[in-house]
Amino acid sequence: MSQSWTISTLAERLGGAWHGDDVAIDHVASLESAASGALAFLANPRFKPQMAQSAAAAVVLKAADAEGLTRPHIVAKDPHLFFARAAQLLHPARVAQGGVHPSATVSDAAQVDASAQIGPGVVVEAGARIAAGAILLANVYVGRDVIIGEGALLYPQVCVLDHCEIGARVILHPAAIIGADGFGNAWAGDHWEKIPQLGRVIIGDDVEIGACTTVDRGALEDTVIGQGARLDNLIQVAHNVEVGAHTAMAACVGIAGSTKIGARCQIGGAAMISGHLEIADGTVVLGGTLVAKTIHQSGVYSGSYPMQEHGDWLKNAAQLRHLNELVQRVKQLEKQLTALQVASGEEKQ
Amino acid sequence: MSQSWTISTLAERLGGAWHGDDVAIDHVASLESAASGALAFLANPRFKPQMAQSAAAAVVLKAADAEGLTRPHIVAKDPHLFFARAAQLLHPARVAQGGVHPSATVSDAAQVDASAQIGPGVVVEAGARIAAGAILLANVYVGRDVIIGEGALLYPQVCVLDHCEIGARVILHPAAIIGADGFGNAWAGDHWEKIPQLGRVIIGDDVEIGACTTVDRGALEDTVIGQGARLDNLIQVAHNVEVGAHTAMAACVGIAGSTKIGARCQIGGAAMISGHLEIADGTVVLGGTLVAKTIHQSGVYSGSYPMQEHGDWLKNAAQLRHLNELVQRVKQLEKQLTALQVASGEEKQ
Amino acid sequence: MSQSWTISTLAERLGGAWHGDDVAIDHVASLESAASGALAFLANPRFKPQMAQSAAAAVVLKAADAEGLTRPHIVAKDPHLFFARAAQLLHPARVAQGGVHPSATVSDAAQVDASAQIGPGVVVEAGARIAAGAILLANVYVGRDVIIGEGALLYPQVCVLDHCEIGARVILHPAAIIGADGFGNAWAGDHWEKIPQLGRVIIGDDVEIGACTTVDRGALEDTVIGQGARLDNLIQVAHNVEVGAHTAMAACVGIAGSTKIGARCQIGGAAMISGHLEIADGTVVLGGTLVAKTIHQSGVYSGSYPMQEHGDWLKNAAQLRHLNELVQRVKQLEKQLTALQVASGEEKQ
Repeated sequence: MSQSWTISTLAERLGGAWHGDDVAIDHVASLESAASGALAFLANPRFKPQMAQSAAAAVVLKAADAEGLTRPHIVAKDPHLFFARAAQLLHPARVAQGGVHPSATVSDAAQVDASAQIGPGVVVEAGARIAAGAILLANVYVGRDVIIGEGALLYPQVCVLDHCEIGARVILHPAAIIGADGFGNAWAGDHWEKIPQLGRVIIGDDVEIGACTTVDRGALEDTVIGQGARLDNLIQVAHNVEVGAHTAMAACVGIAGSTKIGARCQIGGAAMISGHLEIADGTVVLGGTLVAKTIHQSGVYSGSYPMQEHGDWLKNAAQLRHLNELVQRVKQLEKQLTALQVASGEEKQ
Repeated sequence: MSQSWTISTLAERLGGAWHGDDVAIDHVASLESAASGALAFLANPRFKPQMAQSAAAAVVLKAADAEGLTRPHIVAKDPHLFFARAAQLLHPARVAQGGVHPSATVSDAAQVDASAQIGPGVVVEAGARIAAGAILLANVYVGRDVIIGEGALLYPQVCVLDHCEIGARVILHPAAIIGADGFGNAWAGDHWEKIPQLGRVIIGDDVEIGACTTVDRGALEDTVIGQGARLDNLIQVAHNVEVGAHTAMAACVGIAGSTKIGARCQIGGAAMISGHLEIADGTVVLGGTLVAKTIHQSGVYSGSYPMQEHGDWLKNAAQLRHLNELVQRVKQLEKQLTALQVASGEEKQ
Repeated sequence: MSQSWTISTLAERLGGAWHGDDVAIDHVASLESAASGALAFLANPRFKPQMAQSAAAAVVLKAADAEGLTRPHIVAKDPHLFFARAAQLLHPARVAQGGVHPSATVSDAAQVDASAQIGPGVVVEAGARIAAGAILLANVYVGRDVIIGEGALLYPQVCVLDHCEIGARVILHPAAIIGADGFGNAWAGDHWEKIPQLGRVIIGDDVEIGACTTVDRGALEDTVIGQGARLDNLIQVAHNVEVGAHTAMAACVGIAGSTKIGARCQIGGAAMISGHLEIADGTVVLGGTLVAKTIHQSGVYSGSYPMQEHGDWLKNAAQLRHLNELVQRVKQLEKQLTALQVASGEEKQ
């Protein structure tokens, strides 16, 4: 089953130029830990000393860093991307072992492709459809009428609630919760009245969603995660949010209801995005930034308090509470100084 | 079983005035997606163009927005609240299918009402009591001596640990974790010593708690979530916190130990609240605010760094680290200017 | 089985001096709720009135606070630590009930010690080794080749994914997710290419990890949590992070990839730490701080926007966006004032 690789076959398959002996490669590793059979990569020329010490069978790197190199190596335009793809070939993803574990509970009214793998303790409700090659690991829950796309991989403890749709090749990490109710409440004078959440979550093909990330179902319309998007762990996506295709967000991000994030955005860790906003395609939001208004124009946006030694912070933060007064004092100084300058000028005349 | 509704029966049941043909209503929808049979609502007069285009069978709106309207509609004092209640009638909540799934593990020493629904893979430990009409979906865990109130709904992967009490009609979304140990450690010179967490979590009636939200058990006393409170996803409630009745908090909030939050507060997303504080009834904390001291007086509180284009942020954040020095420079300027003014005045005399 | 304790036996076992009647103690409690049989402790002299009212059988306190006290009490150097240890004795931790629940799914190719407790719905994959006295509560998932150390306690819904190692006496709270893929993606011009995550998570002995906390596996090398570390709930630990021994972090912290946190650090709730940094041993980071650069020197570090009444915040935050301009205005004033002072001095001469 497993294929054997050399630097020439890898370079041919993935697009690169190989040099030196055509050594066999059976895994990827870091420069530091690489041993025989390992392909490593040089991320940055300042790691050349580590490369010199490395026991890697071969190294992937840029042409500029390969000058004079005699050891087996592959020159690639984007060594990081080459390395990612080589790692995929050398460490292939899990393949479905078709069949339903006897401890799973699958409704007679669900459709499960014979090639799909349904693990122990999995529950699949009526009307759900599990496509070919999908893998549902232990204790996954799939609600009524849910669609799980071809080759999707659902790790243990994942929940996909009623009516949601998961695209092909989607990866949902453990305890990702897709389709819980959005946070919808109407104040009724002395208590909150629950607003039933009737929309779905629609997740496009090739999306990856991290552990303990929650994507709420829409209130009336759907919550949508575009094709190829990447969401890290512990992210909150509220009802009716739309995340554009190939947008990536690091862990601990929160997105409030009905916000539309464009395609190919990059959202840094712990950024918090208010509701009912729009963020332009290709926008970069740095970690820890609170986005409280629409971003019409792509660019890089920041907003986090700079860290300091605590004593300095105490002084500066205290003054920050009076910043507006300070501005008024400066205005006053400017006025008075101008008056003095005029007076002094008049005197001179 | 299902009841059929028209705008007259809805208006009569929920308190509103209906106008136009007494059309049949079988679901709610947004103005944009509404089709025949749908009730929609007008949230804001600026959406009147969408209303004009909408295929909704009827619309709920304010009297002021209904002038001259000839299509079937319902005038309500609070259209949002009317709509929420209509949605509850038209899309009724899950009803328990009494019985224990054969794959569940229920202790002989637990009491489960015959009308309660115990789903596949559920575990109920000794001494637990599950009241009438409660629904425990797949793989829920209920620890020893736990009480689950009448009509409570526990979604898949929820954990309620030993001795905790869950009120009537409470909704716990997937992977909500109730009663894990609080974070209690005593430093023992060269390591942390665990402080056993001996309190419980007590959750009042009609509370709703979001997916992956964690409410820790108390150290000695209990952690308490008051009746009707609403907690969104990914919220941390530490040991011995008290959350007042009908307080609502958006996702990603964290509350440190022993803090007491009043009734009817609204806490914005990602707000972080330090330990051992009190927050007055009716307080509003905006998203992203770090609350580091007691709030004695209700009001609206904020504290988040404003987002900027990254280049501007770099400059401003750098200066912020020297804000206190800037204040000193302004003080110095004020002194010197006063001296000059005095000197200049003296010269004139 | 259970041992009976008096203040003399507790003092002898844990190191303290007892005074008054040698009363029996069978549980710990707070001063307020203590009843007969309870040991309470005085955390702070300002709670002496509560102590006077307390029905506790005995109180632990400092020598300085015990002057003139006639009720039964124990004087300890560190009453909090004494109390923690007394609580451990009086409320002993769960002990494994050796055996595999019939609803569990344990691979024939896994090794499970006969004294380990494997609860209902638990899944243990091939190659995994579960050591003596370990407890795996309901629906825990243990992947291929995982090692679970002696006496470890895994609460319901915990996942430990393939190849990870969990030390002895480690406690993993519900839905803690150990070894999900790190967030590794390479941009391929029009989409993200997944970088297989091939490292492990290695968790040292006596570590405690909170509910819904996620610790990602390394990309090539391992993610490491040092012995005795304490992680609260809803924390994100990204791939290749190293957390030093006995470091404690409160809830909602996020640590980005490859950052190395020293030993005995204390990281406050909701602190966010960027990737590829180092933090010195013994560093204290206060809650809500964003750490964006290496901390070479231990100390106390802060960085959070101070909370204000919303109207004040609006004014100050607006000015903050122009802080650099304000600094330029002050510079200008200083220059002009100097010029005036020189001119005025010259006139006088």
